[in-house]
Amino acid sequence: MPVVPPLQHLLSMKELSPAQIFQLIERAERLNQPGDNPSYHGRFAANLFLEPSTRTKVSFQIAQRKSGFELIDLEGRGSSLTKGESLYDTLKTLESLGVELAVVRQSQTGLLQHCASHLNLTLINAGDGCGEHPTQSLLDLYTIYQQFHSFKGLRICIAGDIKHSRVARSNAAALSRLGAEVYFVSKPEWQDSAIADHYISMDEAVTHCDVLMLLRIQHERHIHREDTAAYLEQYGLTKEREAKMDADSIILHPAPVNRGVEIDSDLVESRKSRIFRQMSNGVAVRMAVMDSLMKGEL
Amino acid sequence: MPVVPPLQHLLSMKELSPAQIFQLIERAERLNQPGDNPSYHGRFAANLFLEPSTRTKVSFQIAQRKSGFELIDLEGRGSSLTKGESLYDTLKTLESLGVELAVVRQSQTGLLQHCASHLNLTLINAGDGCGEHPTQSLLDLYTIYQQFHSFKGLRICIAGDIKHSRVARSNAAALSRLGAEVYFVSKPEWQDSAIADHYISMDEAVTHCDVLMLLRIQHERHIHREDTAAYLEQYGLTKEREAKMDADSIILHPAPVNRGVEIDSDLVESRKSRIFRQMSNGVAVRMAVMDSLMKGEL
Amino acid sequence: MPVVPPLQHLLSMKELSPAQIFQLIERAERLNQPGDNPSYHGRFAANLFLEPSTRTKVSFQIAQRKSGFELIDLEGRGSSLTKGESLYDTLKTLESLGVELAVVRQSQTGLLQHCASHLNLTLINAGDGCGEHPTQSLLDLYTIYQQFHSFKGLRICIAGDIKHSRVARSNAAALSRLGAEVYFVSKPEWQDSAIADHYISMDEAVTHCDVLMLLRIQHERHIHREDTAAYLEQYGLTKEREAKMDADSIILHPAPVNRGVEIDSDLVESRKSRIFRQMSNGVAVRMAVMDSLMKGEL
Repeated sequence: MPVVPPLQHLLSMKELSPAQIFQLIERAERLNQPGDNPSYHGRFAANLFLEPSTRTKVSFQIAQRKSGFELIDLEGRGSSLTKGESLYDTLKTLESLGVELAVVRQSQTGLLQHCASHLNLTLINAGDGCGEHPTQSLLDLYTIYQQFHSFKGLRICIAGDIKHSRVARSNAAALSRLGAEVYFVSKPEWQDSAIADHYISMDEAVTHCDVLMLLRIQHERHIHREDTAAYLEQYGLTKEREAKMDADSIILHPAPVNRGVEIDSDLVESRKSRIFRQMSNGVAVRMAVMDSLMKGEL
Repeated sequence: MPVVPPLQHLLSMKELSPAQIFQLIERAERLNQPGDNPSYHGRFAANLFLEPSTRTKVSFQIAQRKSGFELIDLEGRGSSLTKGESLYDTLKTLESLGVELAVVRQSQTGLLQHCASHLNLTLINAGDGCGEHPTQSLLDLYTIYQQFHSFKGLRICIAGDIKHSRVARSNAAALSRLGAEVYFVSKPEWQDSAIADHYISMDEAVTHCDVLMLLRIQHERHIHREDTAAYLEQYGLTKEREAKMDADSIILHPAPVNRGVEIDSDLVESRKSRIFRQMSNGVAVRMAVMDSLMKGEL
Repeated sequence: MPVVPPLQHLLSMKELSPAQIFQLIERAERLNQPGDNPSYHGRFAANLFLEPSTRTKVSFQIAQRKSGFELIDLEGRGSSLTKGESLYDTLKTLESLGVELAVVRQSQTGLLQHCASHLNLTLINAGDGCGEHPTQSLLDLYTIYQQFHSFKGLRICIAGDIKHSRVARSNAAALSRLGAEVYFVSKPEWQDSAIADHYISMDEAVTHCDVLMLLRIQHERHIHREDTAAYLEQYGLTKEREAKMDADSIILHPAPVNRGVEIDSDLVESRKSRIFRQMSNGVAVRMAVMDSLMKGEL
C-alpha cells in the first residue's frame, strides 16, 4: 500500500480531492456549532498580507485566536520586505523565530509554491494575484453545501471578470469535480477561453441557476472605470432579474461588494443573499483548514 | 411605565443623562481600584482608527485587553476601505465575522449615526472629525470629579480652537448640564457663536477658574502655522499666568500637547497638571463604557 | 559597601560588564531549554518601531508573548508621532496608560538616553540609527558562546560597512572586553578609524578567523548601489573562500541578507552558517533581557 504523505500546505484547490473537500466542509460544520475549538495555545501563527484585505485577514485572525494561536501580523510596508528581503527569507525567518503556520497574500502567482518546498512551517495561500485563493473557494463550497447538501447536478453560474478572478478559477475547477454544472457570465473582454468556451447572459443565468456567484469588479486592476450603471443593467444583478430567480436559489459574492455595479445595493442583505453568511462561514472553514493541516489529517 | 431600551452605542455625549454620566464615573472609579475586571474572554472587539491616534487607540486596546477582549485592529490603509468599501460594509463584515464591539475614529461627522441603526454590534465613537469624542469627555469629567467631587457651581474654562474642537463641543454641553459654569478663551477667528457668545481672556481665566481645559492647536487642520511664541504669550498658559491660579485649581489637556504653544513646556508635568492622570483615567473610563454598554446597563 | 542600583534600561552594550553579559547568556541558554517561561500575564509591553524591521520586531513580540506580556504595537505612521508629538511624550503617555516596558527602534542616536532618565518604565534600545542595538549584540555573543563556550583568544572578524553599522560598533567593543581578538574587513570608504586602525582582506579573514561576522550592506543608506557581483568577489564570502575556513569556524550575519552581495546565496543555509540559529537565539536572549531588567537582576 503506497503511503501518501498528508498535505503540509494549502496553496491551491487543485491539491484537494473531493473527499478532502467534504472532510473540510464537515469539520467546518462541526466548528460552527457550540463546542470545543482546537487548542494551539502558546504556538505562533503569522499573517503576511502584502496586498490590501479586510475580511480575509480578519477572518484568519479570528479563526487563529479562536484556535488559541498567538498571532504575528506583517505587512509589506514596515517589514524587511521593504529592504528587498525575499518572501522566502522572510518566511524562513519566521520559522526560525518559532512560527509554525503562515498565511500569505501577495501578488505573484506561483511564488508560494516555490517557497513552500524549502519550509518546515505550514503555508496557506490567502490569494496570489490572479492565481488561487483556496480558503475563499472552500467557504463558497461550504455555503452552497449548507443550502443544498450536495453538489451533484447543481447549476452554478459565475458572473463577472472571469479572466482576472482567482475565485472564478478555483471555484470552477472544484465545482466541476464535485459534480456541479458550471456556467459563466462575462463581458466579452473579460472572458477567458482557458476557463470556458461558452458564456451565457445574465438573463439566462437568473432563470437557469441554483447558485449565482457574483464576482467583484476589480477597479484597481482596470485602468478605465466602467460606466457602472450601464454595467449593472447589462451584466449585473438588478432587482428585476433577482425576482426571476428560483425561490430556493442563492446569491454569493466574495466581497467587498461594489454596490450598484455587479449587484443592486438593496439585494446585498436580501433574503436570497448569503454574502454575510459566507463571511461567518469563512471563520469556521479557516479553523478547519488550519487544524487539519497542523494535525496532518489532510 | 414606559420602558426605555438601554443604549446600544455611545456616539455622542448628548445621549447621556447626568445620572448616566455619574453612573459611568462611579464605575470607572471602582475599576481604577484593585479588584476584578470585566471578563470578555474569547469575545472580539475591533478598533478602526482611520485617522492618526496614539493615546485613544492604545487606551482602548489596554482597556479591552484588561477586560479580556480579543482585539482586531484595522486602519484605513491596508484594509478593504482602500478598495472603496463603505464604513457600513466594513462594520457589517466585522459583525459577520463575530466582532461584538467596534471603536471607530474617522473624519466624517454624523457617519456613525447613519451606520449604527443597521448594526447589531456595539459602536463607540472615538472621534469623528469636528464632531464628538464622548469617551474623551467622560475622562475629562472623571478627572474633574476626582478633584472636586461635584460639578455644581465649578468654574471651568475651555481655551483654544473652540470652533474645530470636538472636545470643546462635547464638554461644554455636558458640563453645563452637570451644573458647572463654562467659560471660553479663543482667538477671534476660532470663536464659534453656536457654542458661546462671550469669550474671556486667558488672564481672566487663570484668576477666575477652578479648571483650565486647554485644547490642542490642530496644526494639521490649519494651513498657516501659528507664530507659536506669540500665541503662547497672548492665549496660552505661561508660567506667569499659572502662578496666579488658585492652589486647588487643575489644568487639563487632551494631548498630544504642543509644548510651548498652548502651554509652557515646564507646566506639562507640574503640580496642577492632570494631563497624564487624564490618560490613566481614560483606561478605566473606557472599561466602564464598554462593560456598561455590553451588559445593557446604560 | 557601595550599592550599585540595578539597570532600569538597556540602551547600549557599554552598560554591561562581562559578568552581566555572561549572566544574560546563561539565562538565555536556560530559556532555550523546555521549562517554565517568565510570567507577566496582564502586564503591558509596547513596541515602537519607527524604522522598518521584521526580525527584531517579531522576535521581541514572540519573546514578549512567551513571557505572558500583553502587547501594544506602535509605528510612526498612524500614531501621534505624525502630529509632531515627541518620542518622550509618547513614552510618557504609554507609561500613564499602564505600559511597563517599551522597546524602541528609531533613527536618532542618543535620543533614548535623553528620554530614559525621566521615565519609570523600562526602555530597551532596538536600534538607533548608526548607534547601538544591544540585543542584537547579545544574540551574536550567545551564538558564538554556544559554539566555543568561551571568548578568550577567539579570533573574530567583522566584515562590511563598519562605519555605518551599529552591530559593528556594539560587537567590537563587547568582544574585546570579553577577551576576543577582533579583526575588520571593509572597503576603504567604509572604514572608520575610530573603530579600528588596521583592516585585513577577506582572504586573510577566512584563513585566520574562528568567527566571520558579515554585516548587511545597507542599500538604503547608500545613494549609489554597489556593483554587487564585484563586491562579492572582492569583499564578500564566496564559496571558494568559505572552503578555506576552519572546519569548526562559523558564519554570522544579522540579516536580512543581501544574497549574492556580502555572501554567496548558497552559503546562507550552509553547514557553517549560524544565520537562522541567530534568529532563534534572539528570542531567548530578549526574554532573558526583559525578565532580568523587570526583576532588577541586572
